[in-house]
Amino acid sequence: MARNLKINADRLWSTIMASGEIGRGPKGGLRRLTLTDEDRDVRNLLASWARADGFSVTVDRIGNMFIRRDGTDPALAPVLIGSHLDTQAAGGRFDGVLGVLAGLEVLRVLNEAGISTRRAIEVVNWTNEEGARFYPPMLASAVFAGKQGLEWALDRCDRNGIRLGDELKRIGYSGKEPVGGRAVDAYFELHIEQGPRLDRERVPVGIVVGGFPTAGMRIAIMGETAHVGPTPMELRRNALVGAAHVAVAIDEIGWRHSAAEAKATAARLDLWPNLPGIISDHADLFCDMRHPRADGLKRMLDEVAVALPDCARRGRCTVEIAEQWGFGGLEFDAELIALLRRAASDLGYRTLDLRSEAGHDAYHMASICPAAMIFSPCAGGISHNEAESMTKEDATPGANVLLSAVIARADR
Amino acid sequence: MARNLKINADRLWSTIMASGEIGRGPKGGLRRLTLTDEDRDVRNLLASWARADGFSVTVDRIGNMFIRRDGTDPALAPVLIGSHLDTQAAGGRFDGVLGVLAGLEVLRVLNEAGISTRRAIEVVNWTNEEGARFYPPMLASAVFAGKQGLEWALDRCDRNGIRLGDELKRIGYSGKEPVGGRAVDAYFELHIEQGPRLDRERVPVGIVVGGFPTAGMRIAIMGETAHVGPTPMELRRNALVGAAHVAVAIDEIGWRHSAAEAKATAARLDLWPNLPGIISDHADLFCDMRHPRADGLKRMLDEVAVALPDCARRGRCTVEIAEQWGFGGLEFDAELIALLRRAASDLGYRTLDLRSEAGHDAYHMASICPAAMIFSPCAGGISHNEAESMTKEDATPGANVLLSAVIARADR
Repeated sequence: MARNLKINADRLWSTIMASGEIGRGPKGGLRRLTLTDEDRDVRNLLASWARADGFSVTVDRIGNMFIRRDGTDPALAPVLIGSHLDTQAAGGRFDGVLGVLAGLEVLRVLNEAGISTRRAIEVVNWTNEEGARFYPPMLASAVFAGKQGLEWALDRCDRNGIRLGDELKRIGYSGKEPVGGRAVDAYFELHIEQGPRLDRERVPVGIVVGGFPTAGMRIAIMGETAHVGPTPMELRRNALVGAAHVAVAIDEIGWRHSAAEAKATAARLDLWPNLPGIISDHADLFCDMRHPRADGLKRMLDEVAVALPDCARRGRCTVEIAEQWGFGGLEFDAELIALLRRAASDLGYRTLDLRSEAGHDAYHMASICPAAMIFSPCAGGISHNEAESMTKEDATPGANVLLSAVIARADR
Repeated sequence: MARNLKINADRLWSTIMASGEIGRGPKGGLRRLTLTDEDRDVRNLLASWARADGFSVTVDRIGNMFIRRDGTDPALAPVLIGSHLDTQAAGGRFDGVLGVLAGLEVLRVLNEAGISTRRAIEVVNWTNEEGARFYPPMLASAVFAGKQGLEWALDRCDRNGIRLGDELKRIGYSGKEPVGGRAVDAYFELHIEQGPRLDRERVPVGIVVGGFPTAGMRIAIMGETAHVGPTPMELRRNALVGAAHVAVAIDEIGWRHSAAEAKATAARLDLWPNLPGIISDHADLFCDMRHPRADGLKRMLDEVAVALPDCARRGRCTVEIAEQWGFGGLEFDAELIALLRRAASDLGYRTLDLRSEAGHDAYHMASICPAAMIFSPCAGGISHNEAESMTKEDATPGANVLLSAVIARADR
């Protein structure tokens, strides 16, 4: 029985630190955009570690890497542990990285302890989780879960028009395996919280019970070009000013619901022609709203609908919601959640039930198999920032819970 | 005596229409960014017209084109007529174009009438007046006037990193003549008003007595990247939101002074990293303020200084004026202005004294020789817009005033 089995905390930490050397940002974080040379280098490092310990490494057609430790019963579907090694343009060393390398650590500990499991255990490094280079995020797990087509995903282009499929080939990670379409017994993902609660309340393990309902939208603001000099104020329809009113309104909606832990973000603004001597013709503002409860999110969206006509009037532009999408209003698998709670309790860790406020590959996996997540504390909740930080002591408890739960599930 | 000499209005209009075919925009305006293939094509057309009528065409090292009709006394400095054939990304068919082609028309009329002038008359097409591709605008006239160095100007790069000097060579307009450094007797520029007054008041000719004092600034907004999901509102420092507060404040300052015909524009906003899933780290907002009087402009700038700390507080960012510049607070030459008024009066045209609210190459020329400008009405004052419009009847009176004034000056 593996009740007392623990991960090797020093070894896990050393792999995270080694990963942190590949694509170092100017402020000590990581700039490891998906399918860049840096992403290739960290993938190669992961594969070399895996092969050195005798695990097989396969790559599917969207570049997802699977490190497999066989089980005793080849007829049973495997247990998957996954996360991602790509980062934001100025991201941290732990977001995603912790989950992949804790998965590798689980396999290593099992090898060392000579423990066999009935089911195979696979660690997956998902391609393009961040979406910082190719939109949308969580792209390759969406293909794995059958939510997006492979060809569509391979055709995504970055801002320079470079195709995802071409970059996969360039870095040598356009694999031969089909993407998904196979049985998975369960999916586990360990991740930093990316929020401040565990750190603030000094709780080592977060049990992620589900995701925040999230709504995204592209708001289109239409003005009209004109010369910044002679055009009288009353003849102007400046899309930048219209977009500014919308951005302020979105931010205010976030503040109005902040006591409920809701958030609203004016995240990205594309303007045209965006030149010093000319009034902007049109703008696209990408906004994001998250609330712990679906009814709360609906209220926020209602407030957006009320605010936009006022923004249009004050900015003297037309303003409309051009696209709208949503994700995250899901519950993770009750059985896996119970298993994680039991594992933490057996290990003597206090836990906090949390809802994930960020998107994760686990969201897509939850649509094809039981899935659950564990959160580890990160300093101040800072994430998507080079200053993202955690200690070895922060990283260890979640990884131990992962180990126990995965063993239990793989022996089912 | 040339008192009754008039331009050929149909011929002038036909050259403007021919220019309007080179680089047509989707909405009937022009997209003829400087030193593109379209700019080359219209330059070639201008040169072919000039040579067909026996005028010499020379090009200087920054690509300025000079079409010369010799005078009887080679020892005298020439009279220059200038403007530009480049346009905004979605500009009109008349901005700049009218001035260059009216200059060509002046030379043609003089040839036809067999009139000799004591001084040579040169028509100049200035490179990169708009600044829509290479920053700053009015670049080549600044070099001609000795305000900027030639090498610095040749090294300006567009957004794709393409160097101005390389583009000059590519399109065959990297000339051999030195830039400026020679005597000019007087400089005249005919331009559309780019404002609504002449059109509204049905006055055919605007006498430009000077330029609006103009202040520009780059306001830097510093926030911090963070995940749009889990980061609580109170931990956010979103540079996009900070910039939005500033843009709204700048617009409000413009409205506060609009009765005085002042303007304030939040014109361009650059954000980083400007991605949907991440809070923006920093932003640069380019603003522009214009007021008919220097003391009024100073009051507007004082109001900016007052507004910024409040924007910083509400946007939870640091906000500072990172760069500041000014131009335009100049008076054109009194003698030339009197000459233009007299010419208009002799031709029976009503005139309106105006201050230019846009920047023009004439501003730089005014620092090295007597300079003045004539404005022609354009429909509704719309400019820097494909809908920019004027009629043949709008274009003719200003060109006739130009003709009379240039002849008088060239015989001085």
